[in-house]
Amino acid sequence: MFHNINIQHGESSYFQIYNYIKEIIENGMLPMGSKLPSTREMASIMKVSRNTVMKVYEMLEDNALVYTEKGKGTFVSRIKINKNKEWHVDWTKKINDFGNKAEELDIMKHEQLYKRGMISFRSIAPDESLFDVEELKRAFLNRIALEGEKILNYGYARGYKYLIDYLMKYMEEKGVSTKGKEILITNGFTEGFDIILSSLTNRGDKILCENPTHNTAIKLMKLYGLDIVGVDMDEKGLDLAHLDEKLSEDIKLAYVIPSYHNPTGTVMSFEGREILYNKLKEYKIPIIEDGFNEELQHLGTHIAPLAAISGEENSIIYIGSLSKILFPGMRIGWIFADKKLIDICESVKRSRNIHTSFLDQAILYEYMNSGAFEKYVKKVRNIYKEKYELAKSLSEKYIPNVYVLGNGGLYIFVKLKDIDSRELLDRCLKRGVIFTPGDIFYTDGGGRDTLRIGFSRNSLEEINEGIKIIGEEASYIKGR
Amino acid sequence: MFHNINIQHGESSYFQIYNYIKEIIENGMLPMGSKLPSTREMASIMKVSRNTVMKVYEMLEDNALVYTEKGKGTFVSRIKINKNKEWHVDWTKKINDFGNKAEELDIMKHEQLYKRGMISFRSIAPDESLFDVEELKRAFLNRIALEGEKILNYGYARGYKYLIDYLMKYMEEKGVSTKGKEILITNGFTEGFDIILSSLTNRGDKILCENPTHNTAIKLMKLYGLDIVGVDMDEKGLDLAHLDEKLSEDIKLAYVIPSYHNPTGTVMSFEGREILYNKLKEYKIPIIEDGFNEELQHLGTHIAPLAAISGEENSIIYIGSLSKILFPGMRIGWIFADKKLIDICESVKRSRNIHTSFLDQAILYEYMNSGAFEKYVKKVRNIYKEKYELAKSLSEKYIPNVYVLGNGGLYIFVKLKDIDSRELLDRCLKRGVIFTPGDIFYTDGGGRDTLRIGFSRNSLEEINEGIKIIGEEASYIKGR
Repeated sequence: MFHNINIQHGESSYFQIYNYIKEIIENGMLPMGSKLPSTREMASIMKVSRNTVMKVYEMLEDNALVYTEKGKGTFVSRIKINKNKEWHVDWTKKINDFGNKAEELDIMKHEQLYKRGMISFRSIAPDESLFDVEELKRAFLNRIALEGEKILNYGYARGYKYLIDYLMKYMEEKGVSTKGKEILITNGFTEGFDIILSSLTNRGDKILCENPTHNTAIKLMKLYGLDIVGVDMDEKGLDLAHLDEKLSEDIKLAYVIPSYHNPTGTVMSFEGREILYNKLKEYKIPIIEDGFNEELQHLGTHIAPLAAISGEENSIIYIGSLSKILFPGMRIGWIFADKKLIDICESVKRSRNIHTSFLDQAILYEYMNSGAFEKYVKKVRNIYKEKYELAKSLSEKYIPNVYVLGNGGLYIFVKLKDIDSRELLDRCLKRGVIFTPGDIFYTDGGGRDTLRIGFSRNSLEEINEGIKIIGEEASYIKGR
Repeated sequence: MFHNINIQHGESSYFQIYNYIKEIIENGMLPMGSKLPSTREMASIMKVSRNTVMKVYEMLEDNALVYTEKGKGTFVSRIKINKNKEWHVDWTKKINDFGNKAEELDIMKHEQLYKRGMISFRSIAPDESLFDVEELKRAFLNRIALEGEKILNYGYARGYKYLIDYLMKYMEEKGVSTKGKEILITNGFTEGFDIILSSLTNRGDKILCENPTHNTAIKLMKLYGLDIVGVDMDEKGLDLAHLDEKLSEDIKLAYVIPSYHNPTGTVMSFEGREILYNKLKEYKIPIIEDGFNEELQHLGTHIAPLAAISGEENSIIYIGSLSKILFPGMRIGWIFADKKLIDICESVKRSRNIHTSFLDQAILYEYMNSGAFEKYVKKVRNIYKEKYELAKSLSEKYIPNVYVLGNGGLYIFVKLKDIDSRELLDRCLKRGVIFTPGDIFYTDGGGRDTLRIGFSRNSLEEINEGIKIIGEEASYIKGR
């Protein structure tokens, strides 16, 4: 029976042989106590080296399948039927509330409507065909040459020093005071926001935010059991009158996206930011500011972040991320805040996953520091601008809307005129077009008449065709 | 006053000029309403391009520092003193229990005793000078050539498909049944364990584990408010009689490290694993198995993991990691478990940080698949074996001990004879030697007479010198 084995090319032969012999023992084809061929004989039968057979026999012995009697040989020790099927754990019953909620809120999983060939406006990820892979390679090779093995071994939870220094300077250039502040590198914005909420909040705490807002942030706020206080937005941005209504002493934190808001794309004016900051300061509410990389912005506004407006005060927690235009797959972001808070966040980060990939941090640092980042931005800015202008003008023209928002960036936001966007989506799917219905961005079940169109990865032809289809279907629904 | 500016080489000049003008406005040196030089004049004064000045004026206007009257010029809009110091947040008061606990349990932060030049036996990280950086480069360049931009854009929470397929085969080769099981890629073992605990446990749940055990796991179990039920270990491994005493119906989960246990280095025999599995099965306690990369093991045991012994049953949650010998800085691990559990863990992972770096996963896959991993292991195996044998024999000889454990791997564990290891550490520090006191691995405050010596990154001379010093100091304490 040992002749029957068919050794597959590519897989370690000794594992195959081990598993083969193990199986025939377990199937009872080799009775307990029976003697196996000598290692020399077995090697000859199976046409492998004697060393390989010795290794197999050793492993069989380690796993108590055979035993060796010195001078006598190797014998089968027992028949084990290992196809246990007696205990089946129903894992769905073992998941706790947190796990169940995470699954329930996992939109990505539940909305698998995309099919190949469709024109998809769902993603707001950058267009990878524009990535400067050559420069990335250069960045990698340079860093590896300079620091080789160091960045491949364990690093520090706080992050890679050169990248931190670079980002501190980056914040300073935005007009932010770095006095008493520090940086923690995280796996993107998502991890940053997650760490902040887990360090500062308790279930039931009130958190104020824009309505609509970033859906991933909503998911996390719900996962942490927070009481979400949504402040309406209109075409100009945050509705400051509604903010006044919603402000109260017992709000723990605020979360806002002043620049290139997701999903509306609006940019809060300088005056608006000052008013917002001062109002929240009056109620002693610290603010989590979702930063945004402004370099891409072809419309050129460089309005100071709240973190700058606050001067030397320390109530702003700024979360930055380069995923939106750089290399999302590398998952690099940062929290910039008061050093005492960063200190705690560092400990939380360390307990969760030790640190963010040092290799990735090093590559990203080199890429940005070498000037490749600036070159890339210059290259893509106009390409995205063209797509943005086309998407905006087509939407305004063809989709029955109350308004179309977007100040640049990789998406626009449409408020429909008396049309349910989920119904619109259903019709568009049948015509091969998919977009993100806006209700997922609302904290209160609203926004059924809104949608976000992400065009960064679509050709101009697709933008043209896709938006016209959306327009036709929307007009049809409206006209009934 | 515009002549005074000193533009630094290397920093974007327009930011410098913007900040300079902003500051003199805020300092009141330019009264409200005063007119700025024309862009042409300013360009001449500062010796920069007119374009640069226009950009600066635009930014000043965006930030409400100046305003432009068409045909008339640009004027200072107001004097803002932005050095707010009125509101100082005491962040230490805002941290919740979880954040405080994470900081409290953060040993890394609290035990900064190492000084340059010391012989340090604290780390169990691999020796980076042995890393095959050339092969890593090759892996990176190959993957980038094949998939370039794709791996740089957003990936999937579950992980990079090729790596998952590779690891599934890897598990099969260990004799594990993959039927009904799936894999989730995580940021190392730590994230895997963190995700499991957050998906399955509630505060107060009982979790059974070895005592001593992996200190990071203890930290996480404490952070989740679990009731830790420790089972003693002796020189042979887990004390099965003590296990019998501790088993009870209300234990939620077990966490064990059957191969190359941290910190003791012990390897549980096949029979021991079967007994352990069946005892826990009797009480319906699922097991989190901390897998360990066995390829490094120079003493050659390949005993089947619990995940294999359990056959087609589904109560084992196997957490694997290649950090221990491969590239810890890249943070790649995996959870292998019942698909229903993996499904939940995937949602939790997505909510925490979307996914693990796809670039890193791709590089690691290429590196392992190309055979570079096997070559590396062959190379380092004997180097580590030599260090291990030296460390073990010296410790047995020079340190007054009850036993010295370690079946290979990158560390040994010493149970001292009537010596407090913290006192020993204090004395050794004065002589330039540092090690990890064993009490951090105990769940119940025990282990004051134990220590772990990690020698992977020490030369043979350092191992010789360092262990002799430990021995001398230990003998001194004992002899008093």
